[in-house]
Amino acid sequence: MRKTKKAVRQERPIAALLAPDIIDLLKHSPADVAAETEELHPADLADIVELLPRSRVSAFLAALPGSRASSVLEYVNEKLRSVLLEELSTIEAAKLVEQMTPDDRADVLEELGEERADEILEAIPADARRETQELLAFDPDTAGGLMTTEIVSVLESETVEHALAQVRTIARSGRREAMNVVYVTDASRKLTGVISLRELLAAPEGARVTDIARSEVRSVVTSSDRAEVSRLISEYDIVAIPVVDDAGILRGMVTVDDVIDVIQEKQTEDVQRFGGLEALEDPYMESRFVDMLKKRAGWLCVLFLGEMLTASAMQYFEKEIAALVVLTLFIPLIVSSGGNSGSQATSLIIRALALGEVSLKDWWRVARRELTAGIALGVILGTIGVLRVLAWQGLGIYEYGPNYLRIAVVVGFSLLGVVMFGTLAGSMLPFILRRLGFDPASASAPFVATLVDVTGLVIYFSVALILLKGYGL
Amino acid sequence: MRKTKKAVRQERPIAALLAPDIIDLLKHSPADVAAETEELHPADLADIVELLPRSRVSAFLAALPGSRASSVLEYVNEKLRSVLLEELSTIEAAKLVEQMTPDDRADVLEELGEERADEILEAIPADARRETQELLAFDPDTAGGLMTTEIVSVLESETVEHALAQVRTIARSGRREAMNVVYVTDASRKLTGVISLRELLAAPEGARVTDIARSEVRSVVTSSDRAEVSRLISEYDIVAIPVVDDAGILRGMVTVDDVIDVIQEKQTEDVQRFGGLEALEDPYMESRFVDMLKKRAGWLCVLFLGEMLTASAMQYFEKEIAALVVLTLFIPLIVSSGGNSGSQATSLIIRALALGEVSLKDWWRVARRELTAGIALGVILGTIGVLRVLAWQGLGIYEYGPNYLRIAVVVGFSLLGVVMFGTLAGSMLPFILRRLGFDPASASAPFVATLVDVTGLVIYFSVALILLKGYGL
Repeated sequence: MRKTKKAVRQERPIAALLAPDIIDLLKHSPADVAAETEELHPADLADIVELLPRSRVSAFLAALPGSRASSVLEYVNEKLRSVLLEELSTIEAAKLVEQMTPDDRADVLEELGEERADEILEAIPADARRETQELLAFDPDTAGGLMTTEIVSVLESETVEHALAQVRTIARSGRREAMNVVYVTDASRKLTGVISLRELLAAPEGARVTDIARSEVRSVVTSSDRAEVSRLISEYDIVAIPVVDDAGILRGMVTVDDVIDVIQEKQTEDVQRFGGLEALEDPYMESRFVDMLKKRAGWLCVLFLGEMLTASAMQYFEKEIAALVVLTLFIPLIVSSGGNSGSQATSLIIRALALGEVSLKDWWRVARRELTAGIALGVILGTIGVLRVLAWQGLGIYEYGPNYLRIAVVVGFSLLGVVMFGTLAGSMLPFILRRLGFDPASASAPFVATLVDVTGLVIYFSVALILLKGYGL
Repeated sequence: MRKTKKAVRQERPIAALLAPDIIDLLKHSPADVAAETEELHPADLADIVELLPRSRVSAFLAALPGSRASSVLEYVNEKLRSVLLEELSTIEAAKLVEQMTPDDRADVLEELGEERADEILEAIPADARRETQELLAFDPDTAGGLMTTEIVSVLESETVEHALAQVRTIARSGRREAMNVVYVTDASRKLTGVISLRELLAAPEGARVTDIARSEVRSVVTSSDRAEVSRLISEYDIVAIPVVDDAGILRGMVTVDDVIDVIQEKQTEDVQRFGGLEALEDPYMESRFVDMLKKRAGWLCVLFLGEMLTASAMQYFEKEIAALVVLTLFIPLIVSSGGNSGSQATSLIIRALALGEVSLKDWWRVARRELTAGIALGVILGTIGVLRVLAWQGLGIYEYGPNYLRIAVVVGFSLLGVVMFGTLAGSMLPFILRRLGFDPASASAPFVATLVDVTGLVIYFSVALILLKGYGL
């Protein structure tokens, strides 16, 4: 299951090219629409639907063979799909929904208002209704919420020839089960193995299913997290993973195309959160302006309140600032260097944790590595900072006063301290978040920067107090 | 093709549990290793290889049946695999490499030094060598570099029964072609259609391939970019996409498992770049410290040099600063608010561009939307800022002097201006990068922050000059 089948959609000219012809056909000979579009992928037809004037859409869907119309609807973007299903008569809507695979049916109904969803559910056959209601009961972020129930399974006790005949019957029935993998169960529907269609074809005459099935089969339970599902599919290079309930009974499977959508969605969430906002639910252009504003304003205000501590820190050092105004010149430079190095470290560790390259227990190894990196980076930036002050003084671009040498040293040591702290804090933050039970990817670049800004000021003025006491301070 | 099959790897206890037993078996009865590990997935065996003492690894691989040992090697991490292939005798290494699929063979050889790769190539049969050399000639980031050449194709003129018999023969031959999809070609090997194995099974007796094949088949050319390949596979929910050369001749296919690896790799790159460093080539813990430092120091220095402009900006306003030191208290607060709002906008637009939700021509719509968002967010933060100054003054926490009201207004308007500018600049930066031919994902949070910091200072002091002229300035 997923929000929309078009997680990665770019404009394809084919739809734009064909839309005018389709409008023409709908006007003059709607009966030819089906034949004219026969060769197109439903994803392309969905693009055409999105380009058609709204008044033409239901005529267009009506002109397509039933099962094809519902495939097209699966690829149409979520918002338009909901609108269409509201506009159509309940009978028409139910006919389209009925022909979807059970998981897509549940997805589509989940997007609608509860009342409308119930109306449509009431209008589809009892079998399909029950199946859909079962799927709707699962949390959409779990294997149960992602799975399709249309799977092909055979009994372990059967002969291969019999199993193959069964598969052929299902294939010919026009039902839409994916059948690259065939699951093997015992008489109580407990999952006991898996065979690929290829292995079934390759099996010697007379063999039994149990002879050729692989009994070491990776499965997930209905309550497994979607991240776990996508990790297993991606790690074992499989096209689908079976889903069992707590008793081991085969309930469905999650296929790789849904996993790609999950990975893409998670990626979008991660990038948005790292950018410092709550992840949007809809694509950027389709998000309601007010919703988007809320997701941005929330974090921005939190960060702003945190950043207010910088004003407090500066008030604390106001005497020093008044005495040596030249110190203020370097505040943004020093403070931002801490934020930048922290942001680098955080992005590295977030990904390493997400990919499982490091885990919680590695925090100490990472801390040592990042401390060393922080010192090295701090020495580099500190040296550039010292050279900057000396160069400007030497070239007469700016007059830092009689203590310019000490000021250069203060800038250098502060940069070392701030970069070191930024790197260390940035790298440890994702660990701390995971330890506290949060997603490490909640650590955003602005969050790290804010954390480091306040500390950076304290480091800078403390170094200044130590080195400039009696020299202007 | 890909760097390593374990793009998403987490520790699985199964390997840790079994490794001691395997060591024991290798010592006392190596002949039993194959049978004991028969049911395990090669990915799990690869975990065991990574846990074994290095001295045991070649004995372990030798104890496995040949084709299985080479599957295991495909899942071992890149670094260890290269080391193993260097340590083994050329004959042993060639035997392992020979049994890999051609695309994995090319991947593995690409990781090795050229000399060693040539030695191993020389030792494998001429057919496999030629095939591998052909694949090695493609850019690894193109469809040609990603594809496998082990595909199943049938002639359009054949009968379905004949095609099916052919597929069964291939399946029984033990070769490793994926066969969920069967490609259809004409006599000159030009791609003309596609059938799924399921459709082949479902076809009525006596039908011809040409009757059931779908002739509208999406394909890519060998030079297609990997991003395009993954977009098509993900958009059309297909498990593989055929690759043709410029003449339309079928050359291979890219399968969905490789695409997942491509997506994950791209995601890691994007997060690291957004964090403000050049993307690492290896996993965090496996990266050489010096290499990692270089990738971080480079950008950090560039950002530092950019940030130096803040010191210049402040020098420009030094008279104002000296006259009204209280202004400096709000510098980090104001400047960072611009950076934070810019970072939010950039992360939103990077993802929207990557997913094709917006394209270059939408820049004006996005600019208007973000300008509105920037004003709204600026008003919110500006109001909080004004209240902060008034509250501290009112509560007697800090004394901002006789012009505290004007100072509050300066802070408020500056925040409005800075947040508005930050939001707009952050949202336009990815468009500008794409327009210039760069990846929009090169726009990092620290880069945006640096860009906005300098402008933020100028905005702040300009507002102060206007509103405080004659009132302390």
